[in-house]
Amino acid sequence: MRVIKTLREMQTVAKKWHTENKTIGLVPTMGALHTAHLSLLRKAKIDNDFVVLSIFVNPTQFEPSEDYHIYPRDLARDLEIIDGVGIDIIFIPEAADMYPSGFKTTVEVKELSTRLCGAVRPNHFQGVTTVVTKLFNIIKPTRAYFGQKDAQQAIIIKRMAVDLHMEVEIVVLPTIREEDGVAYSSRNLYLSPKERQAAQVIPRSLELAKAKIMQGERVASRIKQQIQDVIQSEPLAQLEYISICEPESLSELEIINEGTLIALAVRIGKARLIDNITAEELS
Amino acid sequence: MRVIKTLREMQTVAKKWHTENKTIGLVPTMGALHTAHLSLLRKAKIDNDFVVLSIFVNPTQFEPSEDYHIYPRDLARDLEIIDGVGIDIIFIPEAADMYPSGFKTTVEVKELSTRLCGAVRPNHFQGVTTVVTKLFNIIKPTRAYFGQKDAQQAIIIKRMAVDLHMEVEIVVLPTIREEDGVAYSSRNLYLSPKERQAAQVIPRSLELAKAKIMQGERVASRIKQQIQDVIQSEPLAQLEYISICEPESLSELEIINEGTLIALAVRIGKARLIDNITAEELS
Repeated sequence: MRVIKTLREMQTVAKKWHTENKTIGLVPTMGALHTAHLSLLRKAKIDNDFVVLSIFVNPTQFEPSEDYHIYPRDLARDLEIIDGVGIDIIFIPEAADMYPSGFKTTVEVKELSTRLCGAVRPNHFQGVTTVVTKLFNIIKPTRAYFGQKDAQQAIIIKRMAVDLHMEVEIVVLPTIREEDGVAYSSRNLYLSPKERQAAQVIPRSLELAKAKIMQGERVASRIKQQIQDVIQSEPLAQLEYISICEPESLSELEIINEGTLIALAVRIGKARLIDNITAEELS
Repeated sequence: MRVIKTLREMQTVAKKWHTENKTIGLVPTMGALHTAHLSLLRKAKIDNDFVVLSIFVNPTQFEPSEDYHIYPRDLARDLEIIDGVGIDIIFIPEAADMYPSGFKTTVEVKELSTRLCGAVRPNHFQGVTTVVTKLFNIIKPTRAYFGQKDAQQAIIIKRMAVDLHMEVEIVVLPTIREEDGVAYSSRNLYLSPKERQAAQVIPRSLELAKAKIMQGERVASRIKQQIQDVIQSEPLAQLEYISICEPESLSELEIINEGTLIALAVRIGKARLIDNITAEELS
């Protein structure tokens, strides 16, 4: 495992692999690694000749009021967590190199970036698509791995890759949950023990929605109401949005179909947590 | 010389060249080729193992009121003009392939895209940077060639390539002029013989500016006034803007320095013509 900090070195290594016709799996992260990141890294390891883990807390995807400055950064711990996975390169670029002096260029996926989380985080997805484009251009991965927990992000990046003819396969892997159902997230670190327990209300609300849909409920407004009731039963949880939408356009739906995305954002203490399920195999 | 119309075929050819470690020169055009395009193609031929000429009248870089539908399209004539240059591939993609169904992604160079021509063509440069990104992703050229006549376009594309870490060298070649000084442009085809003669006022105004600067004039407002006086002496010419600006930021300058860009846009009949000079070697 080699740590690379400069773009030039990363480009040189990637170029060498490309001329040898090797496949490269990229797992882009902001560090604060956890079990769900490991699932992406392990799949990347299976699928590709080489695996690059990038760690970059990307300033442009945080809103001015958000947690950029307090976002957990602990490289020693990250290195411990990935020990034994067989990663080839950890790429840890500097912000000054990723955003050269006079930087003015953005990549934006219109419409999709303003819905769901984009309504309260107007610059977030533009920051994500811009930095992911940069990483793709530097590394030119064969495949890039993202988690379904960040469903909107995955949908937007897939759209971007198709639209701009990027030669990379976007692989989206299932949400990994802790034992009590709460999705793994770096931002769970912000929660006090009490808040962490309160967070269980999120998967519980989605489980209830799933059960109701399995029982035959198809009316989105009724499912939304039920999710809302569960979230509001928890005094520490503040519901930001529930979306029941078509999973390519993110357009809100009135009737739930196979593949419909049910996503929500909830604030608990200092943390803003997101989660989602997909209506599947409706009979 | 091989004509390629599908993205898949172009990607396959480019990939083959890349694995053979060959260099590729790309000359992106909208067709209606002329002498200035030939100068780009000939330089690309000298610099690279292979040359790709792309011809694509890109709908997204035209404003709704502009000349997209009447823009000259004459492939037979284009093929005649480039005969003997030694181009390897002419890439003529379809709009439906370049802009797949549900397309939503744009690449934008902020600030630079709203100045000069961008003030009257608010969507133009976003269309250019988006389509150039697509071409770069499909072909992955070693070098791409643009003309200095479109100074703002060249500045924006250079900025984009740096900002997004695109591994391509942007080569900008000098403006090529007809015998009477008028810059070659596909849009000169829109001019009647009388209008074509009137267009001489454009290089004449820039020549005067150059002479005044050589004589020691450094005050931008005075140079602007002199250019304006010359353009307004021609009843068929309508001045759109004169900009005297710093050539990286495109910020307007009050005092002319070495490297200062002096650019203008003029409407004559149905044509909107642009031209520019750079203040060089001021003693």
